[in-house]
Amino acid sequence: MKLLVIGVGLIGGSLALALRRADNVSEVVGAGRTLASLEKAIQLGVIDRYTTDLTAEVSNADVVVVATPVMTVDSVFKLISKADCSSSVITDVGSVKGSIVDSAKRHLAADFCQFVPGHPIAGREHSGVTAATADLFDGKRTILTPTPQTNSQAVEVIRKMWEDAGSVVSQLEVDEHDDLVSASSHLPHMVAFGLVHYIANHKRSQACFDLAASGFYDFTRIASSDPSMWRDICLANSTAIARELDGYIEELVSICKTISNHDRKALEQLIKVAKSARDENLAQWLG
Amino acid sequence: MKLLVIGVGLIGGSLALALRRADNVSEVVGAGRTLASLEKAIQLGVIDRYTTDLTAEVSNADVVVVATPVMTVDSVFKLISKADCSSSVITDVGSVKGSIVDSAKRHLAADFCQFVPGHPIAGREHSGVTAATADLFDGKRTILTPTPQTNSQAVEVIRKMWEDAGSVVSQLEVDEHDDLVSASSHLPHMVAFGLVHYIANHKRSQACFDLAASGFYDFTRIASSDPSMWRDICLANSTAIARELDGYIEELVSICKTISNHDRKALEQLIKVAKSARDENLAQWLG
Repeated sequence: MKLLVIGVGLIGGSLALALRRADNVSEVVGAGRTLASLEKAIQLGVIDRYTTDLTAEVSNADVVVVATPVMTVDSVFKLISKADCSSSVITDVGSVKGSIVDSAKRHLAADFCQFVPGHPIAGREHSGVTAATADLFDGKRTILTPTPQTNSQAVEVIRKMWEDAGSVVSQLEVDEHDDLVSASSHLPHMVAFGLVHYIANHKRSQACFDLAASGFYDFTRIASSDPSMWRDICLANSTAIARELDGYIEELVSICKTISNHDRKALEQLIKVAKSARDENLAQWLG
Repeated sequence: MKLLVIGVGLIGGSLALALRRADNVSEVVGAGRTLASLEKAIQLGVIDRYTTDLTAEVSNADVVVVATPVMTVDSVFKLISKADCSSSVITDVGSVKGSIVDSAKRHLAADFCQFVPGHPIAGREHSGVTAATADLFDGKRTILTPTPQTNSQAVEVIRKMWEDAGSVVSQLEVDEHDDLVSASSHLPHMVAFGLVHYIANHKRSQACFDLAASGFYDFTRIASSDPSMWRDICLANSTAIARELDGYIEELVSICKTISNHDRKALEQLIKVAKSARDENLAQWLG
């Protein structure tokens, strides 16, 4: 398999490393905005070479992985559309699928059937190719969201690719995916960013940070994620995220009332439900 | 030093183990509600023996550590007050200080000067004596909140005890302490409990949990804390916690507006401030 990775960062780089580990790529070609990071990717053995002629490489590749930040995917599809990609399978790794599918439809036209929208649910707080590791996807889920027009053989190629990379693959509808991740991933990130931002602007900010314990830092690890990436995710899935934030704000208003009312029983019940839901699902997640 | 630990759980047990490690206790006596856990504490080498006659032991001990849940501290002080504790130093480990100081004042009367309110900022999501470890406090802060009446020699005894246990000791006023921990610790816990509770009651709850990644579980580790303990903390520091929750809700309302308005610049700025505040303070905390 000849692989073209556009955007050789944490996810694109880790995928290349995982597929090399599985020994099922003959060549990995990289493309991206900055020469320095492409050269770093060669040094680290992530890619074999890089290209600045995307059009030619797209036609040559068996699989094209678009792993650039969500907001730049549109311009990448525009570039890809200039190539003949009738014999290549194209996929992406964006954590929002609706806007990306729209953009693929618009640019790829007849080749849209060759595009398999994907979302590997894995990440670290560090970004860039230097953070890439071959085991990033091991045992982690990858969601594919093919549309009715998507070529089913193309779906199988991408399913096999992620399974080879160590991931557990399943499928969802595009809208369903975006609704679910707005609650499971985007909301927790905004809650964490919001909490640290709130403490950072607290009138006793430094004293608060000085008293913070390990729990606080575990809790806010996801607040250390890449700012421009998360800005773009918020913009691309704004309606669903705003809806979930509204629901969560209602939850907090209710908790605040329970605390102010000194409702002992309701408080314990709330905390018990949260603790057992967290513990049970963690156990299941850990297998 | 003869040590009496009332409530041999995670904190009381870890303190006993840490002081044994420092080799500066001649005897550790335990007291508590359940015989089984006291026998477990002997088995684990945490205490030398346990007592059911608190009055006699309080008078014999050099230091009495009250390490029971916040809501039961009042009844423990009531029991202690029956003993002659003029030659013992009494301390506690509660994460809320105002209600505990009030209760000590009420029950200990003339011996109130022998009471040094304390709060070791350390913990794990597991509780009970089986979770106790000698290194729990290593490099972690302990806050003492002596009042104007507190005997300064008693403060020095407790300061030395925590330093021997590996902790870094500092002092705050009682009210200042409760205000600061409501933001640095109690708020994050309520935010985490609230988030898991919200997802647990989501109409697509199981699908959301199925899509949750490692970030979600790190983020919600503190939601796995002991329910009755956190119920009691909420009740004991309800005014400050409700105030911080209100402030945080305002923060989320503003974030929600920023997302709905697609305010690209404000979004990135918010996330950048949060990320750098978190990263800088983590670096400082790690030393």
